[in-house]
Formats: sequence, C-alpha cells, structure tokens
Amino acid sequence: MSAAILSGKEISQKILEELKKEVAFLKEKGITPGLAVIRVGDDPASIAYVNGKKKDAEKIGIKSYEHILPASTSQDKLCALIDNLNSDVNIHGILVQLPLPSHIEEQAIIERISPDKDVDGFHPINVGKMVIGQDAFLPCTPFGIIKMLEYAGIESKGKHTVIIGRSNIVGKPIANLMMQKRNPGNSTVTVCHTATPNVSDYTLQADILIVAAGRPCVVNADMVKPGAVVIDVGINRIEDKEHPRGYRLVGDVDYDSVSKKASWITPVPGGVGLMTRAMLMYNTVLAVKKANSIKE
Amino acid sequence: MSAAILSGKEISQKILEELKKEVAFLKEKGITPGLAVIRVGDDPASIAYVNGKKKDAEKIGIKSYEHILPASTSQDKLCALIDNLNSDVNIHGILVQLPLPSHIEEQAIIERISPDKDVDGFHPINVGKMVIGQDAFLPCTPFGIIKMLEYAGIESKGKHTVIIGRSNIVGKPIANLMMQKRNPGNSTVTVCHTATPNVSDYTLQADILIVAAGRPCVVNADMVKPGAVVIDVGINRIEDKEHPRGYRLVGDVDYDSVSKKASWITPVPGGVGLMTRAMLMYNTVLAVKKANSIKE
Repeated sequence: MSAAILSGKEISQKILEELKKEVAFLKEKGITPGLAVIRVGDDPASIAYVNGKKKDAEKIGIKSYEHILPASTSQDKLCALIDNLNSDVNIHGILVQLPLPSHIEEQAIIERISPDKDVDGFHPINVGKMVIGQDAFLPCTPFGIIKMLEYAGIESKGKHTVIIGRSNIVGKPIANLMMQKRNPGNSTVTVCHTATPNVSDYTLQADILIVAAGRPCVVNADMVKPGAVVIDVGINRIEDKEHPRGYRLVGDVDYDSVSKKASWITPVPGGVGLMTRAMLMYNTVLAVKKANSIKE
Repeated sequence: MSAAILSGKEISQKILEELKKEVAFLKEKGITPGLAVIRVGDDPASIAYVNGKKKDAEKIGIKSYEHILPASTSQDKLCALIDNLNSDVNIHGILVQLPLPSHIEEQAIIERISPDKDVDGFHPINVGKMVIGQDAFLPCTPFGIIKMLEYAGIESKGKHTVIIGRSNIVGKPIANLMMQKRNPGNSTVTVCHTATPNVSDYTLQADILIVAAGRPCVVNADMVKPGAVVIDVGINRIEDKEHPRGYRLVGDVDYDSVSKKASWITPVPGGVGLMTRAMLMYNTVLAVKKANSIKE
C-alpha cells in the first residue's frame, strides 16, 4: 500500500486562485488589500521568507509594503512604525518577520500589532479567541493544516489526533483547533513533546498524526498505525553533496518508509509549508473583509 | 489499597491562611484589596455562589463590593457599571457571576472587564497569555487543580494526563496548563469529550485523570489504571430522600469504587470546588500586587 499525497501545492493553489478572485472583487469596490511586511536585520532565511511573502501577495493582487530596518533598530522605533501601520487605512495586515534581533522584546512587538491586523494570529487576544472557539485570526500553519484536512475531505470527528510538539506557533494551536466542536476538529487530541518518555506509545494510536518536532526522522514507519493520516510540519536542511545547493529539504517524518504505511501523507517540500504561505494571504484578505464589514 | 485523599479543604485552607497574611501586609501599606461582585437576576445558585465568594473575601480581609442588578438590566447598563469599576482604584478584581440572563451577550461582558482586573481569567487576552505560557490570570478551577498537584507534591512531568471535557472554563485551560514546560505541567496531555467514541481506551492510560464531564458516574473503577491520580471536577445534585435537603452532592467519578484503585482522589464535596473558591481570592490578591507593582 502506498499513501495518497496530501498536496500542499495543489490545495494552496486552489486557495490562492479563490483569493485572487476575491481580491479582484474588492478592487472593483475600490479597496486594494495592503500587507505591511517588516524585516529587521539581514538574516538570510528572513530575507527569503519575506521575499516569498511579497511574491505571493503580488501574484494575487495584494499590495505589499516592505519595511526593511537595520539590525540595530531600537524597540521604540519598531513600535513607532507599528503604531503608524496600525492607524494606516491602506494597511490591512501587518507581519513582523521573526525572529527579531535579541535586543528587541519579541512578545511586546507581537502585542503592539493591532489584533485586527494581526494576520499571523500571534497576538494573545487572537490566541485566546481561537481557544475559546470565537472568531479570530488563526495562526497560518495550524490553519493551513485544518484547510488541508477540509479540502481532502478527511474525517477528524471522533478520531484520535496525536501531535508531536508544543510550540506556540504549531503544536499548541493545532491541538486547540483539533479539539474544537466543529469540522475539521472534534478529535480526541493528544499532545506529545520533549518530556514524553515513549512517543511511539502515542503515535501508534494516531488516526491523524501531526509532527512538528523540528528534527528530521522523528517518526519512522514503526511508529505509525497502518492507514494513518500523517502531516509533516518539519522543514529541515540535510547536507547532500549530490544536490546542486549542497543540501536538500526533509521533514520530521521518514517519508520513504512512512508513505508505505499511511493512508495520506504530506510531502516536504510541497506540503504544509505552502499552506502556511497561502493562509497568510487568506488572513490578509479576511482582514480586509472584516475592516470593510464584508461577509466572509 | 485505598487512595489517599487529595483534600481541597486542607489545601484551600492553607492557601487562604497565606492570603490572609498577605492581605494584612497590604493593609499595613495602606492598601485594602477590593473585589467587585456583580450578580444580575435572582438565580438561586448564583445567589449562593456570590454569597460564598463574599464570605471568603471577608474571612481573609478583602473588601467585597456587591452589585445586585435586576434580571431586566440592559447590556449597556451592565457595561457602564463595568466601565466604572474598571476605572475605580479601590477595585482590584471584578467578577460577573455567570450565567447572565439570555438577553445579555455574555462574551461581550467578559471582554469588557479590564484584563488587569479579570480575576476569573476568562478574558481572551488572559486565555491567550496562559496558552503561550506568559504571565496571566489563570481561570480558578484549572489553577486550583495545579495548586493541588503542587501542594501534594504529585509529579506530573512525563506523566500521561487525560482530561474528560473540553469546556472553556475547565477542560481546555487545564489541558493547556498541563502541557506547559513547567512544574506542575510537562505532561503528555490527552483531551477526551463527547465526540470520543471509547473514553475508557484513554482513561485506562491515565497517570493523572481529570474528569470535568458535568455528569455523575462518568468514570468507574473499570476505567481507571491502578495507582492513578484522579481529580474530580464535577458537582452534581443527586436526589436522596434520606438526606435532610432531599439531595446530596456527587462528582463525575464513582468515588466508592475508584477510591479503591487510585493512588490519590479528590472528594466531592471538599475537593476541587473549594480550590476554585480559594483561587479567586488568590487572583484578587495577585491583582492588588500587580496594580501596586509588588513582587509576587
């Protein structure tokens, strides 16, 4: 048996096409969605991420406003910029690329962003509303996983969803989303992490296994129940001299062995990562609709 | 084997004694902690709860300010009262007794309370901060469970904590607290609920079992692993003609059978309920200390 591919490429493409139509409709009404992207310093990964987000925005007609600040930028100066963007009617979403330089208090910056423009879904008030089950901006990676399940028609009600990882941007929010009384969701949810002694005791029970450990090969075929849906959130660089770049990207799951046992599996690359990018665009369009009281 | 009693009576008493000393210390500094308690309508259970909270406050020296409004009170009028209390320097904590009459939008009221005076820990910003692992007012029942584990010296790190129930006031917050990287916490956490097909598949794995289903006898001895720590959040009235009141209180756990198998068990009454009450007082004193920048 070989797993069906749960393709982030296909599903994110569909979402971006729908968003493109929505943006065109908004523009007809005289509204141009605007996304502010702030980068502090010259971390190469951050440059690549910000460029990717700009490109995604342009593709679907969202205007992106890039703010590149030197690594020496003070907390106050960054706050002042965010305050300006919070009150700028042309800006619907504000994204501060993380991580920030160590002299900047990251959480204070996250909380400075208006919750109405918090398209990353990291502001505590959006986190709280998500947990309570209220309308909120959902963080892009967990939201992308939910959308994948939805598009693929994978039933999660009454299923056992096991999550490896308890980060604030993936593990905790996807756990909270999967236990909500709605679809996708309504799962019995187990969260494993670095303090879990025998992770395979839990992964072997999983109908849906979401792996966000941040390390390659955390899950192999021996740890997976036959027929499980396996969602791999990891993106790790592995040295590979035969590859033109000198490395290749792998997930947290041993794809070759697990794909023979699972019913569905997300590839890396081409899986959850693309969904994360698409959901940022989704949240930006959502912010425009909320700001203009347009029904979702 | 018979389980040790995890006594809410004893532990809450210790906490209240410590708080009494803290309040005395605050009063020496010229600060009298003030708790506003708002009740709308004449629901008998609400009257009893509010009276209990007033009594607890008085016992440890907190001044309580009772606001009793008719059931016909409008949303606007209730909001105006909360706004006044938010800006009143003598009030450190605000509690609105739930449930509210059906014409009042409860969530809007919860969000109207200043997060700095939200001693119930229900405001989404406090919920979000709790999930992220930041300093926040914790909701009183889950906080009380954490304190019970702490006082009894029950190790939760690496243990499997299974929770029955996913309410916003117990199930979800205790799940989020028990998975945090701190002590008590650091558990592998499973959340079961009404959509879980075979709850005993999970409860039998539990080292720590927290039952907040809201129905009597949801858990019996056959569903418990020998030596488990069993925490019963339920408070149900069972008709009992031999009892002077015509009813008696039971939890969600079949105490008689489970207490023979567990290592620790909370009684009902005398268990979690008393902890919930004590933690409201704890949060009120905490609010005073935060407002006056006194180290916790």
